[in-house]
Amino acid sequence: MNIGILGGGQLGRMIALAGYPLGLRFRFLDPDPNAPMKRLAEQVIGGYSDVEALRKFADGVDLVTWEFENVPLETVHFLEQRVAVYPPAAALEAGQDRLIEKTFFKTQGVPTTAFLPVESLFDLEDALLRIGFPAVLKTRRMGYDGKGQAVLREKADIRLAWESLGGFPLLLEAFVPFQRELSLIAVRGRDGETAFYPLVENHHRDGVLRLTLAPAPRLSEELQVEAEAHISRVLEALDYVGVLAMEFFEINGKLMANEMAPRVHNSGHWTIECAETSQFENHLRAILGLPLGDTEAVGCAAMVNVIGEVPHLADVLGMPDTHLHLYGKSARPGRKLGHITLRTDSEVVRDTMLLGLAGFLPEGHW
Amino acid sequence: MNIGILGGGQLGRMIALAGYPLGLRFRFLDPDPNAPMKRLAEQVIGGYSDVEALRKFADGVDLVTWEFENVPLETVHFLEQRVAVYPPAAALEAGQDRLIEKTFFKTQGVPTTAFLPVESLFDLEDALLRIGFPAVLKTRRMGYDGKGQAVLREKADIRLAWESLGGFPLLLEAFVPFQRELSLIAVRGRDGETAFYPLVENHHRDGVLRLTLAPAPRLSEELQVEAEAHISRVLEALDYVGVLAMEFFEINGKLMANEMAPRVHNSGHWTIECAETSQFENHLRAILGLPLGDTEAVGCAAMVNVIGEVPHLADVLGMPDTHLHLYGKSARPGRKLGHITLRTDSEVVRDTMLLGLAGFLPEGHW
Repeated sequence: MNIGILGGGQLGRMIALAGYPLGLRFRFLDPDPNAPMKRLAEQVIGGYSDVEALRKFADGVDLVTWEFENVPLETVHFLEQRVAVYPPAAALEAGQDRLIEKTFFKTQGVPTTAFLPVESLFDLEDALLRIGFPAVLKTRRMGYDGKGQAVLREKADIRLAWESLGGFPLLLEAFVPFQRELSLIAVRGRDGETAFYPLVENHHRDGVLRLTLAPAPRLSEELQVEAEAHISRVLEALDYVGVLAMEFFEINGKLMANEMAPRVHNSGHWTIECAETSQFENHLRAILGLPLGDTEAVGCAAMVNVIGEVPHLADVLGMPDTHLHLYGKSARPGRKLGHITLRTDSEVVRDTMLLGLAGFLPEGHW
Repeated sequence: MNIGILGGGQLGRMIALAGYPLGLRFRFLDPDPNAPMKRLAEQVIGGYSDVEALRKFADGVDLVTWEFENVPLETVHFLEQRVAVYPPAAALEAGQDRLIEKTFFKTQGVPTTAFLPVESLFDLEDALLRIGFPAVLKTRRMGYDGKGQAVLREKADIRLAWESLGGFPLLLEAFVPFQRELSLIAVRGRDGETAFYPLVENHHRDGVLRLTLAPAPRLSEELQVEAEAHISRVLEALDYVGVLAMEFFEINGKLMANEMAPRVHNSGHWTIECAETSQFENHLRAILGLPLGDTEAVGCAAMVNVIGEVPHLADVLGMPDTHLHLYGKSARPGRKLGHITLRTDSEVVRDTMLLGLAGFLPEGHW
């Protein structure tokens, strides 16, 4: 089987690394000739709206999937006429636009923050009256890693927020005083079989994921059940196929959906070493119509993103139970260059090791 | 870093899959344009004695290693003048010739079966008088997977054995009435750091490995210590760098060395899912001069070779805790096409699952 992947970043690279042992072959479409998937698969160099490139990409692949959710919807529709594409385009549409996404959560009965669309300064002022301070103004589209957001704490913040984001379609969300951010990775097969990884706890800085603890510390059965119920409604409503990630805020023991990603997810990288089957393999099993692999954790893990610069390899690999994943990218401030996973059998040991690892990373990494 | 691999078979393929996450790149030399490593690395198509191909292969790689031990020694010497090669050539020399290998074991005080070189029918008859029946006549070189061997149980077997093997340099070994075959995978770094995986139990049929149980059932601390002592002598004597595999016969609770392989080994494939660090990653860490990864088992595993034909994927992947590795080879009777690893936390569960798996494989697979 020859799998086509839209996008050739680290997520595609890890899908390919998981897929070769299943006997699969890969082709990817990416405008960047130095994409991380380079050397690991056949590349069609071209933009996502380049019809000639899309034809070439689709010709001879058995199945298409994507590794980032900002693929134009028209691209997916174009490809769907030629080859099976998973996950469904509707998931991409919801994943690309925060307003559609939040409206969809609401329709499915998945609790989410209060939100209102904002198309003008008048809308914004009106929405602030109804939602109240503090609130977050966000672009509807193309936001990731904390970009395209502005927190409004008081009236004086309105002007600056509007000046920086006013040109885009926006929405205003209530600022949620959450205790922590959790995420759930689920996978659903072509026959409707679903499986869930344990909830994990995520730590961000400057809007970028820095650290994932898996499974989430103090994870209760109730919280896991609640998260699975929420994501199940989304999976069913979309007739989803593949891996879906959902980020939640935990507020006084209850969950509120923040956003979803219709793809493999950074907060699921720990599954490579610490779950019986990785999210990458399970995404492939799902879209191929194969039985899903077991999702239970084998011990516990901490996943730390390598951002901006790669630490000295010998330092990292000299730590026990440490697994390094580099993405083959050149260093640049703020760029995700890789990740490190610690896998152990006890949370106490893991947390001690994590302190050791912090010594090899830039100060205040998480 | 760009790593050159002599040979592009499944072992090289799994080295590359383990090496990409470390940020490495790979080039391989193999005369077969459809070698399993195809698509996973840059290939120089050429024979192992083709000087032009060797020059091209060596140009721009930082380090060379091999994935099968029948690389001509002259090839390694040629490459050594241009680029660092690990493991050391002396290990290759010993690994290629059973007579040198057994003599070397003897010199190092590693117990092995009685053996004598055989260069003529007269030698053979003389050796049989000294070693006695039953005995095994083996080619000194190029033997693998049970090829190039003949068992002699009585005088009448001499003629046939001599007719089939008489053209080659040979040795005669005493036939050892062993209880089981075990193997040990060790790894030694450039600084002399060593690490050992637990002993595993191997089951062959027609001379081909079918099943590995890891760690070996009823594995005593004493047996592990004994195996490590034997392999340590070999590692030190050769100033070895990389992964080395040694096969042992267990006879009344003691070990006797059968042979060694100066490379990653089929009986170590279980380490991908069931050891903290795989043999493939540890081979790379060792030859790169990086700290070695932890070698302890995480639960227990059974590794089954997929030979001749690939079972129905959905059957295999529908079994819990099952991991499939296909090598991208076309099916052919007797050919190793892949392997399947079951990883669980209990030997009882594993053995039950193994019975289930047997149902999807050709009858009498192991």
